[in-house]
Amino acid sequence: MTEPLFNRIAILGLGLIGSSIALAVRRGGLAETVVGYDKDAQVRAKAEELALADRVRKSAAAAVEGADLIVIAVPVRASADVAREISEHLKPGAVVTDVGSVKSSVICDVLPEIPDGVAFVPGHPIAGTEQSGPEAGFPELFEGRWCILTRCEKSTDRAMEQVTAFWRAMGADIDIMDPEHHDLVLAITSHVPHLIAYNIVGTAADLEKVTESEVVKFSASGFRDFTRIAASDPIMWRDIFLSNKGAVLEMLGRFSEDLAALQRAIRWEDGPALQELFTRTREIRREIIEAGQETAAPDFGRPHGSGDEAG
Amino acid sequence: MTEPLFNRIAILGLGLIGSSIALAVRRGGLAETVVGYDKDAQVRAKAEELALADRVRKSAAAAVEGADLIVIAVPVRASADVAREISEHLKPGAVVTDVGSVKSSVICDVLPEIPDGVAFVPGHPIAGTEQSGPEAGFPELFEGRWCILTRCEKSTDRAMEQVTAFWRAMGADIDIMDPEHHDLVLAITSHVPHLIAYNIVGTAADLEKVTESEVVKFSASGFRDFTRIAASDPIMWRDIFLSNKGAVLEMLGRFSEDLAALQRAIRWEDGPALQELFTRTREIRREIIEAGQETAAPDFGRPHGSGDEAG
Repeated sequence: MTEPLFNRIAILGLGLIGSSIALAVRRGGLAETVVGYDKDAQVRAKAEELALADRVRKSAAAAVEGADLIVIAVPVRASADVAREISEHLKPGAVVTDVGSVKSSVICDVLPEIPDGVAFVPGHPIAGTEQSGPEAGFPELFEGRWCILTRCEKSTDRAMEQVTAFWRAMGADIDIMDPEHHDLVLAITSHVPHLIAYNIVGTAADLEKVTESEVVKFSASGFRDFTRIAASDPIMWRDIFLSNKGAVLEMLGRFSEDLAALQRAIRWEDGPALQELFTRTREIRREIIEAGQETAAPDFGRPHGSGDEAG
Repeated sequence: MTEPLFNRIAILGLGLIGSSIALAVRRGGLAETVVGYDKDAQVRAKAEELALADRVRKSAAAAVEGADLIVIAVPVRASADVAREISEHLKPGAVVTDVGSVKSSVICDVLPEIPDGVAFVPGHPIAGTEQSGPEAGFPELFEGRWCILTRCEKSTDRAMEQVTAFWRAMGADIDIMDPEHHDLVLAITSHVPHLIAYNIVGTAADLEKVTESEVVKFSASGFRDFTRIAASDPIMWRDIFLSNKGAVLEMLGRFSEDLAALQRAIRWEDGPALQELFTRTREIRREIIEAGQETAAPDFGRPHGSGDEAG
C-alpha cells in the first residue's frame, strides 16, 4: 500500500478500462474512497457485486461530489454529456481526466464544461483486451503499457503531475503528446488496424463460394488473429471512427494505396517486390518485442498444438 | 508408441513444418526410419544437431531412396524442382504427399513428375507459427488442427487412407476438398489476411508524420497483432501469392470493395452502419473459440499487463 494519492476518486463508466482502474486503485490504495458510476443499471449492479468501488452511484453528478480526481471512462462520443452533467458538481481544485482513444474531439467536447478552478488533463492508456464490461477488468491491465497525456488550456502543471503519478502508480509509463499528433499516431497503430480487422471478418462472412463454417474451421491459418480485435466493443469503436475521422481517412488512404501496389505486384508476378516487403516487415515485430510491447513466445504463446501460418 | 505406419519416411525441406513432422513422427514411432533433406547446408547441419532425422542427406534423390512415404515440405514454387529431382528415384508403391498452402499449382507442377506405380496425395496442414527454420519445429504443432487432403489422378484409395492415418497419428483431423475450392478457402482464411497484415506493417513503417519508433512504442493498441503474421517466412509467402494469384485477387477485390464502403460510412458519419458491422464480427470469434480453433483467454492469453484495444 502506497500513501493515497487522492482522498476521493470518481470513475465514470465501469467498462473494461473503468473497472480495471477501480481494481488497480483499490489494490494499490491510491485513494481513500472510490466512487463508481455507470449509466447502465446492470453494469452498476455487477460493479456492486464485484465490489469495484466503495460506492456506486446512479448519476454522474452524485458520483463526483467531493471527488479530487474524476476519471471519465465512457465511449468518446458520450464524453460531452457526462462532462455537462458533472460540470456544476465538481469540487474546486478537482482534477478531471479521461481515457478516450481520440483526444482532439474529446478536448472540444469536454473543455467547455470544465469550470474555473478545476483542471482537465486529457489522457489515453494504451491498454485493453478485446473483452468489455465490468467483469473484463483486471488491475494489472496498465502494467508496462504507455499512457499518453495531452495538455489543454486547463492542464495545470500540478494537475499534470497528479495524473502522471496516478498512472505511474498503476504501473504505466507516461508520454506527453499534443492532441493532433496523438490522434494521428493512434490512427495508424490502432484505429486503422481495427478497421481492417473488422473489414476482413465482414468480407469473409459475406462470401457465397466459401461458407462461414469453412472460415471458422480453417481460421487457424491466419484469419483468427484478426477476429480478436474485431471482437472489441462495437459502440466504443463506432465512436472512435466518427471522432477521429480526419486522421483515420488519411491513414486509410495510405493503406489502400499501398495495398493497390501490392495487388499489382501479385497480378504482374513481381516476386522480388513481394519478398522485399515481407522481409522488411519482419524487423518491426523484432523491435516491438525488444521494446517490451509484445511477447517473444511464438503464436502469442497460444496453447501448444494451436497455430498459424501453414498459409 | 503406435505400430509404425511406414518403414521409411523421407521429409524434403526441414523448415517449421518439415521439422515438426520429423519430431512428431519420431515421437509417435510412426516410421522405422526418418530420412531428412534440405537444400540449405546450414539447415542440414542444424537438423543433424537437433537429431530431427535418423539420416540427413545432401540430395533429395538420395533422401527418397527406399522411402515408402515422401513428404515434400518446401515453398510451393520449389515443389516442381524437388519433384523432378526425385522422380526417377521413387520406389514403386511409394506415396508422395506435400504440405503446400496452394494446391492447384502444386498439382500442376508435381503430378507430371510422379511415375506410374507411385501415388500422390496433395495435402495441406492448417498449422504453423510465425517462426521458421528447423529450430522452430515442435511435435505438437498439428494437434487439434485440420489437415486438408485433395485428390488428383494419382491419388489411389490406399494412398488416401495411408496419408489420412499419417496425419491422424500426428493429432490432426482430416478434411477432403477439391484443389480449386481449397485455394479459394485459403485465399480468404489465410492468404488475404497475411497480405493485409504485411501491408499495414509496411504502411506504418513508411509514414513521415509518425515515426517508426512511435509505431513500435504504441503498438499494443492493436498494430502488434498484425506484426505476428507479418513476421512469417518471406519466401514461403512470396510463393503463395504468386501461386494462388487468381483466388487471392478475387478475395482481395471483395476486401477492398468492403473497405471502400466502410471508408464512405466513416466519411458520411454513418454510425449505425459501423455499429452493425462491428456487432456482427464479434459473433464469428465466438464461433471460432467454440470450434476449438482459438483460445478463449483474453488477448490470446498474452502475459498479464500486456494488452490491446485501448484504441
